[in-house]
Amino acid sequence: MLYVAPVFRHRSQPSRPLVSAPAETAVLSLLLAEGPLSRVELARRTGLSSTAVTKAARPLIDDGYLYELPPERTAPGAGRPVNPLAVAPDREYFVGLKISVDQVFGAVCDLRAGIRATAGRPLDVCTPEAVAGLVAELVDELLDADPAFRDRTRHLGVAVNGDVDRDSGRLRHSGLLGWRDVPLAELLAASTGLAVTVENDVRALTVAEHWFGEGIGTGYFALVTIGAGIGSALVVNGHLLRGAYGVAGEVGHICVDPAGPRCRCGARGCVEAIASTDVILATVRDAAANPRLTFDEVVEMAREGRPEAREAFARAGQAIGVGIAALVNLVGPERVVVSGEGVDAYDLFSRHIQEAYAAHAFGAASRCPLSLRPLPWEEWARGGAAVAIQALFPQPAATPTIGAG
Amino acid sequence: MLYVAPVFRHRSQPSRPLVSAPAETAVLSLLLAEGPLSRVELARRTGLSSTAVTKAARPLIDDGYLYELPPERTAPGAGRPVNPLAVAPDREYFVGLKISVDQVFGAVCDLRAGIRATAGRPLDVCTPEAVAGLVAELVDELLDADPAFRDRTRHLGVAVNGDVDRDSGRLRHSGLLGWRDVPLAELLAASTGLAVTVENDVRALTVAEHWFGEGIGTGYFALVTIGAGIGSALVVNGHLLRGAYGVAGEVGHICVDPAGPRCRCGARGCVEAIASTDVILATVRDAAANPRLTFDEVVEMAREGRPEAREAFARAGQAIGVGIAALVNLVGPERVVVSGEGVDAYDLFSRHIQEAYAAHAFGAASRCPLSLRPLPWEEWARGGAAVAIQALFPQPAATPTIGAG
Repeated sequence: MLYVAPVFRHRSQPSRPLVSAPAETAVLSLLLAEGPLSRVELARRTGLSSTAVTKAARPLIDDGYLYELPPERTAPGAGRPVNPLAVAPDREYFVGLKISVDQVFGAVCDLRAGIRATAGRPLDVCTPEAVAGLVAELVDELLDADPAFRDRTRHLGVAVNGDVDRDSGRLRHSGLLGWRDVPLAELLAASTGLAVTVENDVRALTVAEHWFGEGIGTGYFALVTIGAGIGSALVVNGHLLRGAYGVAGEVGHICVDPAGPRCRCGARGCVEAIASTDVILATVRDAAANPRLTFDEVVEMAREGRPEAREAFARAGQAIGVGIAALVNLVGPERVVVSGEGVDAYDLFSRHIQEAYAAHAFGAASRCPLSLRPLPWEEWARGGAAVAIQALFPQPAATPTIGAG
Repeated sequence: MLYVAPVFRHRSQPSRPLVSAPAETAVLSLLLAEGPLSRVELARRTGLSSTAVTKAARPLIDDGYLYELPPERTAPGAGRPVNPLAVAPDREYFVGLKISVDQVFGAVCDLRAGIRATAGRPLDVCTPEAVAGLVAELVDELLDADPAFRDRTRHLGVAVNGDVDRDSGRLRHSGLLGWRDVPLAELLAASTGLAVTVENDVRALTVAEHWFGEGIGTGYFALVTIGAGIGSALVVNGHLLRGAYGVAGEVGHICVDPAGPRCRCGARGCVEAIASTDVILATVRDAAANPRLTFDEVVEMAREGRPEAREAFARAGQAIGVGIAALVNLVGPERVVVSGEGVDAYDLFSRHIQEAYAAHAFGAASRCPLSLRPLPWEEWARGGAAVAIQALFPQPAATPTIGAG
């Protein structure tokens, strides 16, 4: 559907980045992800001089975003005691949302993406208008939970399925929601009065995991989600991979078997065409000649050792493992986190994923560990909040850096 | 073989980068790849102030690396005429080498990787000692071609098959050369007196193509080489993808058919196990029951329409196309260049590559064009020179940037 915007009450839209100079950006981002750190350590890690670190930190301390911890106990004669710098997590709050086809789930997070409150609402009609209204109510409910939330929240981050143009805030297309070309950021800014950043849900989750989770400190990081869809997002040199045409991380659409089943994307033998939970369900329904089986029942059958169910999970795991190996061989992440609603059944295919991955990871790339992370709705909403926290920083330059290496 | 270094005559090893400040680095790199440019344009593209551009350019002009072009004709009343800045290509020369199992090929290139002289020598014994001696002779021959080369050459860049640790200059392993853990940079610095940078040959070629060829101005770029091996290198956000464990771009070791033939890496169904020129040759020899066929004869057979040969190329092309689609779906380059010794026979599988690529590229990623580039020895040597030119720049920081997006 093509979306025509209705009129909403308009409030102010604060959206200036908190930091703009490269030194401030470097200091704040490092403290957010890995603080507290001493000025000496900050200088070492950012490549700035101690003077530049002190100068960059000053306005952030004055503004209440950073504070000095009490001096660390040092050995006698070890010089002046140092006061490590830390982020004041309650200086500002961020609302993160995950919009799904049947619900909107939200969380208030602090500056370090710590979850402080959550709330969800079922969605009866999945239209942009209905979502905008529901989001306004949900944000009000969340911000009402604590007067400090209401006072210190300026940013809303939205995690949503589909092809998102983060710069313009438009959802170009979402097959799952059935939306096309929706100016979602504009719409939700109008309905909530907050500055809104919209991001693809897997990418938002990856930002949260990279900044505040298992990806901390890694330059190369990948998150793979398994479920009704199979996707991934990749961090390279500290930045989310976006692709020149907006497409990247499509591990679900790598072909792992040219003679395999037709995928909904039209191609043959995609990982998703073999390994999505929908395909597993359909396969077992066919094999068991029972079209009413639910996914939970299929999981139960597999756990009971029923071969038709076990076989479907084994095949899915093999395809996922081959797909992850392709990702690792091409991009070389330091670690891969596997997550998504499909991980509830992870015990059924984890061995097949790991075996296929180990068989196809090339050379030293096989040292990259796969780890599993369950993914409740809170985590998706936290992904939205992480994207909102990024709005404190200037957008990266559009011109690519041409440098050594 | 484990290498023990012999004693060579030692000359000075100049190796300080020409530029160190970020502003100088940005100005020089942009002018190298895309100059001449006006100071206004440089300021716009680098995000620097005009004053910062002028300040950064000054020492490079004084040193003869940059010069001012005559003022551009401007419309009457359009303000002061502007003098675009340009790189003086002859200010410094660079020797690039490609070391193969049976020859060493070299080129003298100018600052913009323009080839100014070339020479090659056959290699009878492929040992590090033999190569070091031969390289010394070859570099002497190249630099003797013009007194200016001898005066203004400080850097040697070496493109070589295998797993290279560029920072230490060690070749960790090359299956093709049969070398393991060779301190190649140290060895060649001792034998030539030049500052030496060693890089994997596909990565070196990609640097040349990204800076000075079809990749100019692209932030995301990929080069795929086809031949006895199938490899690729990827540029993301202007930087070569290295992988957290040194492995990246291994498109030859993506599994495209779990039931496919065993690859020399040990896995089953790798692109390389189906599509390398060695495999094509072996397949057609088998099918034709003629173990003496050469690759040229196989190409001839295919061009004559012999089905066993045509079929082998079709299958290879299909595997390569599926592999490139996986690369494009995961990383999202702006364009992909296909090159390598295998492109001599490109007419035989180009249709299959393009068809399989089109069938498996996902959504907007299919807008990424594949283009073909023949690859004579000069180009490999020029890749080595491009890597040497990078030695003018500081190495990128080891700590990943944590930034917005």
